[in-house]
Amino acid sequence: MKFSELVQRLAVESHSLLCSSAIDPDLLGVAAIEEATPGTLSYIEGEKFAAQVQTTAAAALILPPNPVLQTQATDRGIAWMTAVNPRLVFAQAIAQFYQPYQPIPGIHSTAVIDPSAVIGEAVAIGAHVVIAAGVQIGAHVCIHPNVVIYPAAQIGDRTILHANCVIHERTRIGADCVIQSGAVIGAEGFGFVPIPEGWFKMPQSGYVVLEAGVEVGCNSTIDRPAVGRTRIAHQTKLDNLVHIGHGCQIGENCALAAQVGLAGGVIVGDRVILAGQVGISNQVRVGKGAIASAKTGIHSDVEPGAVISGYPGIPNKLWLKSVAIFNRLPEIYQSLRRIQRHLDLTE
Amino acid sequence: MKFSELVQRLAVESHSLLCSSAIDPDLLGVAAIEEATPGTLSYIEGEKFAAQVQTTAAAALILPPNPVLQTQATDRGIAWMTAVNPRLVFAQAIAQFYQPYQPIPGIHSTAVIDPSAVIGEAVAIGAHVVIAAGVQIGAHVCIHPNVVIYPAAQIGDRTILHANCVIHERTRIGADCVIQSGAVIGAEGFGFVPIPEGWFKMPQSGYVVLEAGVEVGCNSTIDRPAVGRTRIAHQTKLDNLVHIGHGCQIGENCALAAQVGLAGGVIVGDRVILAGQVGISNQVRVGKGAIASAKTGIHSDVEPGAVISGYPGIPNKLWLKSVAIFNRLPEIYQSLRRIQRHLDLTE
Amino acid sequence: MKFSELVQRLAVESHSLLCSSAIDPDLLGVAAIEEATPGTLSYIEGEKFAAQVQTTAAAALILPPNPVLQTQATDRGIAWMTAVNPRLVFAQAIAQFYQPYQPIPGIHSTAVIDPSAVIGEAVAIGAHVVIAAGVQIGAHVCIHPNVVIYPAAQIGDRTILHANCVIHERTRIGADCVIQSGAVIGAEGFGFVPIPEGWFKMPQSGYVVLEAGVEVGCNSTIDRPAVGRTRIAHQTKLDNLVHIGHGCQIGENCALAAQVGLAGGVIVGDRVILAGQVGISNQVRVGKGAIASAKTGIHSDVEPGAVISGYPGIPNKLWLKSVAIFNRLPEIYQSLRRIQRHLDLTE
Repeated sequence: MKFSELVQRLAVESHSLLCSSAIDPDLLGVAAIEEATPGTLSYIEGEKFAAQVQTTAAAALILPPNPVLQTQATDRGIAWMTAVNPRLVFAQAIAQFYQPYQPIPGIHSTAVIDPSAVIGEAVAIGAHVVIAAGVQIGAHVCIHPNVVIYPAAQIGDRTILHANCVIHERTRIGADCVIQSGAVIGAEGFGFVPIPEGWFKMPQSGYVVLEAGVEVGCNSTIDRPAVGRTRIAHQTKLDNLVHIGHGCQIGENCALAAQVGLAGGVIVGDRVILAGQVGISNQVRVGKGAIASAKTGIHSDVEPGAVISGYPGIPNKLWLKSVAIFNRLPEIYQSLRRIQRHLDLTE
Repeated sequence: MKFSELVQRLAVESHSLLCSSAIDPDLLGVAAIEEATPGTLSYIEGEKFAAQVQTTAAAALILPPNPVLQTQATDRGIAWMTAVNPRLVFAQAIAQFYQPYQPIPGIHSTAVIDPSAVIGEAVAIGAHVVIAAGVQIGAHVCIHPNVVIYPAAQIGDRTILHANCVIHERTRIGADCVIQSGAVIGAEGFGFVPIPEGWFKMPQSGYVVLEAGVEVGCNSTIDRPAVGRTRIAHQTKLDNLVHIGHGCQIGENCALAAQVGLAGGVIVGDRVILAGQVGISNQVRVGKGAIASAKTGIHSDVEPGAVISGYPGIPNKLWLKSVAIFNRLPEIYQSLRRIQRHLDLTE
Repeated sequence: MKFSELVQRLAVESHSLLCSSAIDPDLLGVAAIEEATPGTLSYIEGEKFAAQVQTTAAAALILPPNPVLQTQATDRGIAWMTAVNPRLVFAQAIAQFYQPYQPIPGIHSTAVIDPSAVIGEAVAIGAHVVIAAGVQIGAHVCIHPNVVIYPAAQIGDRTILHANCVIHERTRIGADCVIQSGAVIGAEGFGFVPIPEGWFKMPQSGYVVLEAGVEVGCNSTIDRPAVGRTRIAHQTKLDNLVHIGHGCQIGENCALAAQVGLAGGVIVGDRVILAGQVGISNQVRVGKGAIASAKTGIHSDVEPGAVISGYPGIPNKLWLKSVAIFNRLPEIYQSLRRIQRHLDLTE
């Protein structure tokens, strides 16, 4: 594909593209800036990576709107286009070169499908898939091999279930969701009441709802509650090995990074971002737009828009200051001892 | 079901039920207090939730033995019964309304079972299950689709293996266990001896024992050791994504929440509770009845009955105090500097 | 097997074995020192465990080169051999008694293999395995039941894929690798660009490379990147439930313990050791030979050879000192208040 052709295709989505005119290479593919080879398109996220314009072997670049970078690229014979969000345009450019694997519609002969299941049109159901009684599968759904769907689950249109994932009874998955390989949705919540003889198992009669556009990472687990439902709202994205306990309510457009764990009944507002290995205790509420940095342990409610860190989580700015002092505690303690000796206050 | 009929059924298990007599609604189901709709039964765990008696739409409530709450419920036309442990009675009530999914006995034609396997009576074996040589399956066992059982494993009576879990060679699972979807029991422990060329893989000749009533959460992993066995005693419950390293010995009636990780050879006493994301180092001993709060990192032995928190774990009360001061370290440091200036001791 | 025969076999690998001559029991198996029964071989890792020589029921021991221990063993009628690394020789001894389960070569009739897949000689392919178009399987590969391999993946000679693991499109796994049950290799990286409407999904056109001798633990996940590759170099070992984000580059001979999580683009040098539940942030570089203790949160680059701990990670020695003071913060704070009162500086 000619660079100019790519620019034209992307312009449909990103109106204000400015680009070099004199240089118009043939593009073979896309690459990260430091790994770019001749014939590839790459991008610079911002000024911080400006030095790489001088060294990259890329044939074309997506640049932030910076005349200096544009001149540098032109001087090196690199074609360029600009974008306010170069990473977004790069993502769109990848889509021009890369066709994700998509099985052709059809139901494999080895799939075991209960006669009471309702299957939409143009679905792809892979080998050894098992679909139980009363399941409803929407149109254009893609179910990869060895997926198991328990009774009465619902799968929305165009949703993709990757290999070996398990969808438990009564789970409702919306349209355009992606469930990555090995994820388990809707299994029994961890509900045990202590009794003198040990534990009484609380029946888990609820179900899980994933709204449209939700993505669940590999080997993540989302449990159903004793009563009611666990719900993840539109477009929220979960990374791998995430645990969502029974009865959690998660808002729209959130992003939960790998190995995040939410205990039972946690309520998370819209557009919350939880970095890797964050943990949230039972029943805690996290306000809209809050951000927790990696490994934060959240034991109590978080205000909307707050940025928190630490264990237990506190405002990020305070945490950064406290950590800086924590790392100097040995010398601070020495100072204190010196004062005590000076004042003859040593115990 | 009439409320009075439900009370009668539950009274078999909970002797001292007191209940409203004048009000006797028809009950359609069970619900959490804040989501209760007309016709549902709900519960109040304790005084803390008393305000909800005034607002819930529930037709009936399980209350703690508190006359004030009883009067409030009666005044609102809500039927009630009392229980010392309302959550336990609510769990029993759910069981009156909810019938968990249970496949009917039978062996699916697509299951691949080695002729040397011994299969008990009235088992349910789902589609695409694979059972290797020398496996023993007890009576009334339920094996969901796509489970794989390696050679010489034993599965006790009435145990349930959910979809896509893997039981490795020589694993011994007792009666009445539940292995949730995707769990892997008895795989090779992480045993590598450093040698000049890299790592020498230690053969993992041991096996895993789960005693009766053990429950293992979705995608959790329990490894077998080089020699001997990894053992989880009666009635201990593991949540999702828990890791149990090779050679661990875990007592009875413990509860390990999601994403807990135990390194090799950890010894845990009876009735220990480990909250989410707790980690325990190699060979550490945790005494009977100890409790570790979420994210605690346990590097050394824990006394029986201790409550610990923090990283590394220390007594919970000390940790709470230290954390409170940690969060004020910036101002404390300022005070110290002020003293130093006052005394002319600044370095 | 006679003890003397075992010594002879092991001597081939460990040249400088010294052993007792008078005592030559028949050995039935191997055991941990505290669980050893008559007829078993065990080992003492070092002086620390010397007392166990006096109590063990083992018939034979592998000892460190310590004349006192040797005399003690002889006095108790225990046969012994010495080794500079008793644990390594014990590992070799296990291999003399234990034959790991290895399915016999052959392709199970229920496996679904695309005609375009290239399958090497003497492979073992289990029941219900699914192999997609363009996959290449080397010689002597063992694929356990219910494994799914997406299109165009490559599996090197003698590699073992345990049950229910998933190998995604274009993944390249080298020779002599072990992928434990439930692991997912090469799924889509967690790449979403924030846009006003929510998230734009970045296509994940890259792939994962595992070089020869890599081992991946149960239910671990290794993601592919948007462009380029995620790479794990020769002989590196990953434990269970580990997450490797898109685009990470991990060196040779590393060991990553259970529940470690690496965000995107992390670069890890050779022979790095990460203990359980360590987390590393985006784009961080960890130098060759560095060690991070359990639960360390690594937010910034780590020098080669460094030993770090804490959250955020700092040099281990400093962390140990700071933690010791953290645990005394309440009393330290009291001292400070006393000084303030003494100086009349209280705010």
